[in-house]
Amino acid sequence: MPLPDSSQYIPHLAFDSVVFGFSKGKLKILLMEYHATGWLALPGGFVKRDEDLENAVKRGLQERTGLEDVYLEQFHTFGTIDRFQPEVMKSILLASGAEVPEDYWMLDRFFSIGYYALLDHEKVTLTPDILSDSIAWYEVDQLPDLIFDHNKIVQKALQTLRENLDRKLIGGNLLPERFTMNELQAVYEAILGEKLRRTSFQRKMLSLDILERHEKLFTGKSHKAPYLYSFKP
Amino acid sequence: MPLPDSSQYIPHLAFDSVVFGFSKGKLKILLMEYHATGWLALPGGFVKRDEDLENAVKRGLQERTGLEDVYLEQFHTFGTIDRFQPEVMKSILLASGAEVPEDYWMLDRFFSIGYYALLDHEKVTLTPDILSDSIAWYEVDQLPDLIFDHNKIVQKALQTLRENLDRKLIGGNLLPERFTMNELQAVYEAILGEKLRRTSFQRKMLSLDILERHEKLFTGKSHKAPYLYSFKP
Repeated sequence: MPLPDSSQYIPHLAFDSVVFGFSKGKLKILLMEYHATGWLALPGGFVKRDEDLENAVKRGLQERTGLEDVYLEQFHTFGTIDRFQPEVMKSILLASGAEVPEDYWMLDRFFSIGYYALLDHEKVTLTPDILSDSIAWYEVDQLPDLIFDHNKIVQKALQTLRENLDRKLIGGNLLPERFTMNELQAVYEAILGEKLRRTSFQRKMLSLDILERHEKLFTGKSHKAPYLYSFKP
Repeated sequence: MPLPDSSQYIPHLAFDSVVFGFSKGKLKILLMEYHATGWLALPGGFVKRDEDLENAVKRGLQERTGLEDVYLEQFHTFGTIDRFQPEVMKSILLASGAEVPEDYWMLDRFFSIGYYALLDHEKVTLTPDILSDSIAWYEVDQLPDLIFDHNKIVQKALQTLRENLDRKLIGGNLLPERFTMNELQAVYEAILGEKLRRTSFQRKMLSLDILERHEKLFTGKSHKAPYLYSFKP
C-alpha cells in the first residue's frame, strides 16, 4: 500500500474532526478503527500544499461521510509537545502493511486543528480510510479510550458546542429538515447532558421566531399528532 | 543580522497575538512596525521544535511586553492559501539587512494560530523584535492597514472577545487590580462598541457576586467619591 507522500502535504499539520450525529435519543460521534491495532481515533487528515485549510477538512469529511455540505466549525488547535508519539504512528502504519522509512514525515511532531461537524445521522454513508478497518458511530457518553489526545479533543469540542448552542442556534443541524418539537428538545438535552422543562423549552424556541410550522405528523393516533417544524431559511 | 534558523522552529506554523489594552476610554492593540517598509503587523512568532504551543505564545508576549502572566486565549487558526505571499516576507527580511536564501523557510506557506491577550496597559514595557523599528498601541476603532490577513485576525479576535465577555467575565483583565464601577463600565463599552445604562450595568455586576468592595477613592470631592472594587480571587 502506498503511503501519503510528503511532497503533497504540509508537514507537522493535521486536522481532526469531531463529527456529531443524533440517533435514538443519543449524541454520537464518528470514530475510525485502525487496522490490526484496534486503536480508535477521530477521522482526520492533512492539508495539501495548495489547499485552503477549510477545504481540506471538507474534503476529509466528504470522503468519510459522503456529505458535501455540513455544518462545520473550527474550535481549537492542539499543539503540546506530548502529542509527539512517533511509535504510535509507526505501529499504525506498519499494521497497514506499509514500509515506513525512519525519517517518514508522518512520524514527526504534529499540531492538530480541531473542527466539529453537525450532520443528519440518517444521511451519512460511512467509508473508512486506507489506514482503517472501519468507521462507526459511538455514544459520546460512553467513549472508549482514543489514541493521542483525541479524548481531550472530543471534550473540548463538546464544551464549545454547548457554549455555542444558544447563541448560534445550531442544534437543528443534527435533525432532518422537518422535525417535531420533542425531537428538537431531545437534541438539546443530549448536547447539554440535562433534562429541560418541556413548556419552557417550547416557549423559548417559539419566541425566537426561527421555526416554521408545517402540517401535523400523523401517526394513527391523530388526536395526539405533533406539528412538524423546520428552521426558517 | 542572523535570521532565525529553520532547524530550531516548526516550519509552516506561526502564531499571532492580538494584545488588548485599555487606556483613556479606548480599546487598543499592539502593533509592530517593520524596518524600512513601514508595514504594520501583529506581534507574533514561531514555535520551537521542543516547545508547547502555548509556551511559545507566552514567550513571545513576554519578550514584547515584559509581562509573564497575562490572560491569554486561543481563538482561531488561519490557513487559507492566499496568506502565502513570499514577496511580502522577503521585503521585510531584506529591509532588516539580512541575506535571504531562495528556499529560506520563512518564505514558505504559513498557518497562523491566533491568540488574544488582555492586560493592564499600565504594566507593559514595550520592546520591538529584530525585524521591527517599534511596537506601539493603536486604537482598535481606527486601525491602519496591516500586512497579510492581520486586519481579519483582529476582527475575529474582537468578535470572540465580545462573545466571551459575559460568559467568562474577562473584562477586568484590562484594568488595574482595583477599579471603580465607572472604569469597569467603560471597558465593557469599549469592547462592545456601545453605551450601556449605568444603573443596569451596576446592578448586573453586583448581582453576579464576583466583585469585592474596598475603600472609597478619595479625590478631594469626598461627597462624590466612588468605591473601589476588585475581582474576588
